[in-house]
Amino acid sequence: MKEFEVINKYFALNNVNRPDVLKGVGDDCALLKVPRGQRLAVSMDTLVAGVHFLEDISPEDLAHRSVAVNLSDLAAACAEPAWLTLSMTLPELDDSWLAGFSKGLKEITEFFGVQVVGGDTCKGPLSITIQAHGFVPESVYVSRNTAKAGELICVTGCLGDAALGLKVAQNKLKVKTDVAEQLLKKYYRPFPAIAAGIALRGRATSSIDISDGLLADVNHISQQSGVGALLRWERIPLSDSAKQVKDQTLVQQAALSGGDDYELCFSVKEDELEATQHALQVVGANCIPIGRFTGKPGVRLLHEKEEIPIKDMGYLHF
Amino acid sequence: MKEFEVINKYFALNNVNRPDVLKGVGDDCALLKVPRGQRLAVSMDTLVAGVHFLEDISPEDLAHRSVAVNLSDLAAACAEPAWLTLSMTLPELDDSWLAGFSKGLKEITEFFGVQVVGGDTCKGPLSITIQAHGFVPESVYVSRNTAKAGELICVTGCLGDAALGLKVAQNKLKVKTDVAEQLLKKYYRPFPAIAAGIALRGRATSSIDISDGLLADVNHISQQSGVGALLRWERIPLSDSAKQVKDQTLVQQAALSGGDDYELCFSVKEDELEATQHALQVVGANCIPIGRFTGKPGVRLLHEKEEIPIKDMGYLHF
Repeated sequence: MKEFEVINKYFALNNVNRPDVLKGVGDDCALLKVPRGQRLAVSMDTLVAGVHFLEDISPEDLAHRSVAVNLSDLAAACAEPAWLTLSMTLPELDDSWLAGFSKGLKEITEFFGVQVVGGDTCKGPLSITIQAHGFVPESVYVSRNTAKAGELICVTGCLGDAALGLKVAQNKLKVKTDVAEQLLKKYYRPFPAIAAGIALRGRATSSIDISDGLLADVNHISQQSGVGALLRWERIPLSDSAKQVKDQTLVQQAALSGGDDYELCFSVKEDELEATQHALQVVGANCIPIGRFTGKPGVRLLHEKEEIPIKDMGYLHF
Repeated sequence: MKEFEVINKYFALNNVNRPDVLKGVGDDCALLKVPRGQRLAVSMDTLVAGVHFLEDISPEDLAHRSVAVNLSDLAAACAEPAWLTLSMTLPELDDSWLAGFSKGLKEITEFFGVQVVGGDTCKGPLSITIQAHGFVPESVYVSRNTAKAGELICVTGCLGDAALGLKVAQNKLKVKTDVAEQLLKKYYRPFPAIAAGIALRGRATSSIDISDGLLADVNHISQQSGVGALLRWERIPLSDSAKQVKDQTLVQQAALSGGDDYELCFSVKEDELEATQHALQVVGANCIPIGRFTGKPGVRLLHEKEEIPIKDMGYLHF
């Protein structure tokens, strides 16, 4: 099967047809219309087999995950998603695998109303590169370098489940079936916080999506904004599933340093907390304060009143 | 070295700083401004080691080639290039290799005034994915499906040199040193026809860049436009270097089916040929008519008055 036949068969999806796509899949370039008054937000991520996903992942889950991690970057920029480009490097053209990938792709693009407008298919070791494109009103600017000392640090949801789910998938963690299902779902089907990002326009003073782990991502904001951060362990939200895991040290590590949750971490001014909580509640998201940006450099973590040493952002001593 | 250190050291280039880049490398998303009255043209291509380039290519040449093939897609859409995103999958972080790649990237981005605004670096088998972004005035629409019977088929320059250069690089073709140099340059340093693309706005009625080979690419336009094509072998431009190759059957195959030349193939109305030739001449490009789109389906090739059978678009019997 030649490249353009693959494209036609599996990726010239017709489930989403946006009026701002003047030319989509099948030409040298896609031709696209950014609405007046909007900026274009773009983010590109590559997922490599064995590095970013387990080799035995289902093609449906891989499609979902590849798109979700890119949309999550748009969410962090308070952007509304519009278009995707997709480049797939595949070791072989396996019909049932491609049909599964196409199905997963169709579902998530339909859910978020994003159109696949171009891409590439190549032979080679399995990897997926996606670029997500979205719109941000020109009045909105939120970044990693815009936090100020005194602002509250908040997250949109529970942390650690995805990293625990990975342990379950790898047979490194045994839990009850229903708990396993919940954790695996968070790992395999991360849900980008698009609605929360849009609701945070004009409210969040800085923002990032939690892909590297809470401490690492808070550290990114701290360093780029030139502020410090003080986090409180007991405020960090854990799911009921995570609470049922016996090894609570593992849960702490997952919540603080495990990536892949794709919740947003953002800052708000203290007197805007309640309004922001309301704004997120109406779109089905949470706004949970877990600490504060400070004038003292570095990321620190308190457990009750005691400071917990952070060895590095990816490894912790309790 | 961690991902963000790589990005900072090698890819947060500061050679091009465009005013339409509100946020570039180093955040979740780049934030970009498309000028009023312009459409966004995007194209994504992945280059895999051993498939799209020889394993022993220099990092400078690889950077040039990866950018050039993407800019070439913009040229085919008559777009003016603006921004690039770049995802690199690397087996290891080799300082001198990265410095070479960064140098090659810097040169070509500076030449075309394009800014690298984002991307990704991963560990894995060597491959490069680039997305090029450019602008097209909203009054301009040129595509693969817009050719009409009766229009002339033209190319912007000599064909076959890149495919012959590949043979030289692979030690499958022996030629004199100066000829070898010319052919290798065309293979390793393809030059995207950006200036020609811009000069063709409002003139070309269809357009494609010759990446798969002339016959295959003319066939793409023919099929998508619902027309046939009649090409004349003796009109197809060959370089002085190609003319010095002894095996002229090889030269014919290279010119007709060898990809990688990255000249544009486009159609114009017959009475606009002279004006188009002038428009291309002033930007240093050529406009060479090599045949005509017709009402009779299929791509045909005449040599003097005899029809040459085309076995398939990639293999020819003379």
